[in-house]
Amino acid sequence: MEQVTVRQLYRNLSRYEDKEVEIRGWVRNNRAQKKFGFLMINDGTFFETIQVVYEDEFLSNFKEASKIRVGSALKISGIVIKTEGAKQPFEIKAREVHIEGDSPEDYPMQPKRHSREFLREVAHLRPRTNLFTAVFRIRSLASHAIHSFFQEKNFVYVHTPIITSSDAEGAGETFRVSTLDLNNVPMTEEGTIDFKRDFFGKPSNLTVSGQLEAEIFALAFKDVYTFGPTFRAEKSNTSRHASEFWMVEPEIAFADLEDDMYLAEDMVKYIIKYVLEKAPEEMAFLNKFVDKGLLKRLDSVVNSKFKRIAYTEAIEILKKADKTFENNVEWGIDLATEHERYLTEEHFNAPVFVTDWPKDIKAFYMRINDDNKTVAAMDLLVPGSGELIGGSQREERLEVLEKRMEEMNVPKEDLWWYLDLRKYGGVKHAGYGLGFERMLMYLTGVENIRDVIPFPRTPNNIEF
Amino acid sequence: MEQVTVRQLYRNLSRYEDKEVEIRGWVRNNRAQKKFGFLMINDGTFFETIQVVYEDEFLSNFKEASKIRVGSALKISGIVIKTEGAKQPFEIKAREVHIEGDSPEDYPMQPKRHSREFLREVAHLRPRTNLFTAVFRIRSLASHAIHSFFQEKNFVYVHTPIITSSDAEGAGETFRVSTLDLNNVPMTEEGTIDFKRDFFGKPSNLTVSGQLEAEIFALAFKDVYTFGPTFRAEKSNTSRHASEFWMVEPEIAFADLEDDMYLAEDMVKYIIKYVLEKAPEEMAFLNKFVDKGLLKRLDSVVNSKFKRIAYTEAIEILKKADKTFENNVEWGIDLATEHERYLTEEHFNAPVFVTDWPKDIKAFYMRINDDNKTVAAMDLLVPGSGELIGGSQREERLEVLEKRMEEMNVPKEDLWWYLDLRKYGGVKHAGYGLGFERMLMYLTGVENIRDVIPFPRTPNNIEF
Repeated sequence: MEQVTVRQLYRNLSRYEDKEVEIRGWVRNNRAQKKFGFLMINDGTFFETIQVVYEDEFLSNFKEASKIRVGSALKISGIVIKTEGAKQPFEIKAREVHIEGDSPEDYPMQPKRHSREFLREVAHLRPRTNLFTAVFRIRSLASHAIHSFFQEKNFVYVHTPIITSSDAEGAGETFRVSTLDLNNVPMTEEGTIDFKRDFFGKPSNLTVSGQLEAEIFALAFKDVYTFGPTFRAEKSNTSRHASEFWMVEPEIAFADLEDDMYLAEDMVKYIIKYVLEKAPEEMAFLNKFVDKGLLKRLDSVVNSKFKRIAYTEAIEILKKADKTFENNVEWGIDLATEHERYLTEEHFNAPVFVTDWPKDIKAFYMRINDDNKTVAAMDLLVPGSGELIGGSQREERLEVLEKRMEEMNVPKEDLWWYLDLRKYGGVKHAGYGLGFERMLMYLTGVENIRDVIPFPRTPNNIEF
Repeated sequence: MEQVTVRQLYRNLSRYEDKEVEIRGWVRNNRAQKKFGFLMINDGTFFETIQVVYEDEFLSNFKEASKIRVGSALKISGIVIKTEGAKQPFEIKAREVHIEGDSPEDYPMQPKRHSREFLREVAHLRPRTNLFTAVFRIRSLASHAIHSFFQEKNFVYVHTPIITSSDAEGAGETFRVSTLDLNNVPMTEEGTIDFKRDFFGKPSNLTVSGQLEAEIFALAFKDVYTFGPTFRAEKSNTSRHASEFWMVEPEIAFADLEDDMYLAEDMVKYIIKYVLEKAPEEMAFLNKFVDKGLLKRLDSVVNSKFKRIAYTEAIEILKKADKTFENNVEWGIDLATEHERYLTEEHFNAPVFVTDWPKDIKAFYMRINDDNKTVAAMDLLVPGSGELIGGSQREERLEVLEKRMEEMNVPKEDLWWYLDLRKYGGVKHAGYGLGFERMLMYLTGVENIRDVIPFPRTPNNIEF
């Protein structure tokens, strides 16, 4: 008798029809009648459950089976029967039902609606629900889509360091990483903290971005990408911020902002297509129960040509818009979510790259345009979400970069190696960052970042 | 005129023969004669360089070209010429040579032999050398091999948390993650540190393993894996230890130690085959210049059936061995490297799983065997390296696990969720850990872990 997974049965039904098979999985529901009953089994390999019919007439332990509780782990053998016209294309008629792992009455994941807030408190059990089965399989598939996309293009995946001594981007507050004894913090004679006695001999923290190190690799391998965890120690408790999240940061050499945008557009489309193809059941579920416009929106993104517009032009469009914004619109502002959504959802009704931003609101490494007022940066705005990607061409001119660092008080001595990249065979290069969780929220329609991360870290929240 | 990469030229030479193409890349060497010269160009896409011939007769800026320095970035157009019988199968006859990015005389990566120690100090430039071009492309390919292996088998990739509040494994010293002010550490009235005022409201640190959280996912998705950074704050400065390294940790449900070993064997063979296929030039280089037995050893691993032996039997073999070991051999010891290597290199001359270890030297979560003396654990030993993988079947019996945690002083209250996994539909499951850098050292023959990590972190070392 062949041991099969639920995925194998669904994907190759004809191979197993009328044959006896053995499955192993967990009980999502058990509806017992007097003479027969139905077990809904999920074995983790597939989104859908399998219906197992058991009958008093055929099953020696019918009584035991009829008392099996939700959450129990079972080994079942039975015949695969095609069920014409039923909700599910087939069921299993049980010959043997064996309990591998019991589940008591107090199992929290009973078959009813649970609030997202409650499910976060049982994050160790929520992957067993429909919603999180879908979300976390999509997380896995989207990850692999990203790797496959870049590897097919011969990009080199680089593991940039997690612990670092610089907060070079100045991107926000960082977490300190230390082995100093908090009960007895060593001090220097000058009365400052003696970081020489810390593990790395100097202050160190968790990375906020792998970009600067990715540039090192781009100037050796031409096309590279990072994909790893990044951290922000911001105390903001919003539905879109987590303290620990994963970032994808490609970096391409002999390339400019145009190349960067083509790459971003290709990547976004690739990820969406990959997930739609590999997880049709999960996506249909999300479209039905989480976000009714999801499939339509993703389809339209895949089939649209992304628009491009300069920031200055975007400001003009917003000024002329027949709409009152809460945040004032004038040249020099950073766009607020309401502006982003107006542009992508109402004005263009398509994904749009906004390019050439005022230099004063952007990072030191972005390439200064000839107008000396803007930088070669781009944000990708998408309908239904707003900003998905931010990127730029990097300043490759040593003198311009040094001047910019001085203006913005970025310590040059810490970034001697970054400057070396401009000194020795520096060429134009560009890159962008995709917040992986942002992409997942976009792919799934799930609105809280805590629900697309297996075990989210936010202020005062570090359980599991 | 088509813009091509060096990889395209090498892999599809016939398509470009006698055609004019444009390439962009960096100068590895420039040998100028009076009337002609040779530029060796690497564009990062391919291990091998391309030879560009430039002649006074054809090149308007011959004089400039002849002075181009090593490390400069160039844009070159020219004709692809097949070179019968030469070391390289073709060269490019330059029509135009344009300097995109200059490189001054003091460029440290001159074409000569550099010590590994020196290269670590210029880790931002070492990816431009042959050795590190090879190593870091193999790192990227091996990563993707791991993802592809598991994804093809429908495993779910899970991002386990990096910041955690438990050092559940007790695997060693951890790095504290904190936002407390070191100049003014807040204290409670009892005179202890007031971690309630830290970012997460309790002491938190960097993870040493994602296994326990991976088990959560295995008991929902059946087959899962992690692949992410892990950390050890040990002050040991050896060639095989880093403070930050990447781990692969699959976890499979409805599975025992046998299944675990089959998975590990398949995975190791898959990674090796993948890298040999995708990076033949890099592997040939490493075999020639780094480790002359490399290809032979890897080939033999791919084609061998991995042996299996119980720990108790292994001890007998070691006792009978016609060899004096530095470390005493008796039942109950952990195997030292010399023992491991004797078993795999001399006794078996093949990879070997050593199973069923004394419980006293293994972790609390490993499944107790019926003898009550050993646990269902396995180490995979490979010729040329020793231990590559460590894994076990997990204790799925709630009472046995609780008793074991009590014996070993593992705090049950912190791991309430881990115990829940045994309470609600717990089933037999197993998993293992592969230190990714160990695998890379094995794949490349490189002997120091600092040379397989882009920017290694070790005590007092956090540059870049």
